[in-house]
Amino acid sequence: MSFELSLNTGTTTTLDLRQAAQAAAEGGLAHIGPWRHLIEQAGGAEASARIIAEAGLSATTLCRGGFLTAAEAEARTAALESNRAAIREAAIIGANELIMVVGGLPAAAHVLGGTGERHDKDIAAARSRVARGLDELVPYAREHGVRLVLEPLHPMYAADRAVLSTLGQALDLAAPYPAATVGVVVDTFHVWWDPQLQQQIRRAGVEGRLASYQVCDFNLPIASDALKSRGMMGDGYVDFASISQWVAQAGYRGAVEVEIFNEEINAQDAGLTISTMSRRYAELVLPHLHSAAGLITEHSAS
Amino acid sequence: MSFELSLNTGTTTTLDLRQAAQAAAEGGLAHIGPWRHLIEQAGGAEASARIIAEAGLSATTLCRGGFLTAAEAEARTAALESNRAAIREAAIIGANELIMVVGGLPAAAHVLGGTGERHDKDIAAARSRVARGLDELVPYAREHGVRLVLEPLHPMYAADRAVLSTLGQALDLAAPYPAATVGVVVDTFHVWWDPQLQQQIRRAGVEGRLASYQVCDFNLPIASDALKSRGMMGDGYVDFASISQWVAQAGYRGAVEVEIFNEEINAQDAGLTISTMSRRYAELVLPHLHSAAGLITEHSAS
Repeated sequence: MSFELSLNTGTTTTLDLRQAAQAAAEGGLAHIGPWRHLIEQAGGAEASARIIAEAGLSATTLCRGGFLTAAEAEARTAALESNRAAIREAAIIGANELIMVVGGLPAAAHVLGGTGERHDKDIAAARSRVARGLDELVPYAREHGVRLVLEPLHPMYAADRAVLSTLGQALDLAAPYPAATVGVVVDTFHVWWDPQLQQQIRRAGVEGRLASYQVCDFNLPIASDALKSRGMMGDGYVDFASISQWVAQAGYRGAVEVEIFNEEINAQDAGLTISTMSRRYAELVLPHLHSAAGLITEHSAS
Repeated sequence: MSFELSLNTGTTTTLDLRQAAQAAAEGGLAHIGPWRHLIEQAGGAEASARIIAEAGLSATTLCRGGFLTAAEAEARTAALESNRAAIREAAIIGANELIMVVGGLPAAAHVLGGTGERHDKDIAAARSRVARGLDELVPYAREHGVRLVLEPLHPMYAADRAVLSTLGQALDLAAPYPAATVGVVVDTFHVWWDPQLQQQIRRAGVEGRLASYQVCDFNLPIASDALKSRGMMGDGYVDFASISQWVAQAGYRGAVEVEIFNEEINAQDAGLTISTMSRRYAELVLPHLHSAAGLITEHSAS
């Protein structure tokens, strides 16, 4: 399934799992990457696995586990429990790759107003708690045959969503664990700006941790809800040619997910979204994956 | 003048140079960091130097040169000419440190709509042009006794403002040149999230390139004009204690500028802004600079 397209359900936020799976299948896709709230809404992992199979699809990843930065014991216990549930769900739907968004600074200072507590802003301590959380989750993930896939998020989300901001940092965090159990994802939106990107993608390949490639564009201006600044490939600033070549040169041959939180795209007809993303993918991403992988593209052969 | 506060005029955008200098002096400050448009508005560098001196202040930096990413010959020539003028101005006002914002991707793709031209998104090429621009400017800066101070900007500005995103990258870019002629600035807003921050601040110290320390906070949500997301120290997420200690441990003993583009702060009375920033600086920043520098603070001695 080299470089086959997968619909992340973040691209079609108005649809439930059955609708998203149906839209993906009708759009000619073979894969889907569901978010956990859709799994729950569909009645759980077994029911979701059936829905995905009935649509003729396979699941590429499950979004998401993580949020391991809380300092208090109760919140940490709850987070670990939620991650264990996510690991079980990933195994049941056959995704086997659980995307991990590690969490931001706990007890956000701006809620307190003015000068917050010192420990809330201690990003180094928050990162240590992520590492400790991984220590606890890795054996469980391994037992279930699920890979924890660390996702570096754009630094604009470091405060409130992920203290993991670069691919190099993700690989450092993954280093103590087997590559089969802890991998990393390259999401173009989050990492396109990184001056070390080429070298860290190469490193991810060498270390056998390149678990997922997600594509969408980086739009400006940043949306009022910053999470929705993601754009359709070609509408923003991302150099898909270079990044896709690096990913394929690093040995990645898996499916490619499209995850676009974007108010306009999320509101439009899912069929239109899927046809647009398929066309843009074929134009802007796939030829560069193919050329770097040494394959002939239909386009270049025609 | 160890750790004395300096008013960057980006904090008081409604004031002209004379008003800003007067407000800084009335607020008990000894330093100002002007932006170039205020220099021009005041009748040029000589007139500005007099205004700053008459207020009893010294200039810490001049904001700003840079914008060296254009690909076309005409635009590059104009950018170099503008930078030479900025170097002369910095020398005349006695700032001797010219802050360099290197520029974003040229011919922004979103203006073209849809799929932009390939070369516009080639961030590696844009970075190479920055390096070539520095090659041309360094001898001129050296002749004028002005240091070019490379400013890594937050990655959320990589597309439209600066393809220089981390302190490590800034130090790599500076490496071919004498430390007296090319330095770097640590602006907490831009770099607080960087997992390599401590190590790169240390490196900046070892290499003798730590030219300026600018403090303001990182606020959420990101403002609708993303440039205005900067906040008063203590209102956001920045760990000033840790970063200030690292900066002082790296040997920095210069002035500390406060540069806050923020709609609310920019609109309020400048006297209030200056008294607030002085108090927050004394509470949240200065004790950590002092302790790491081995000095006794008034606060700790009382």
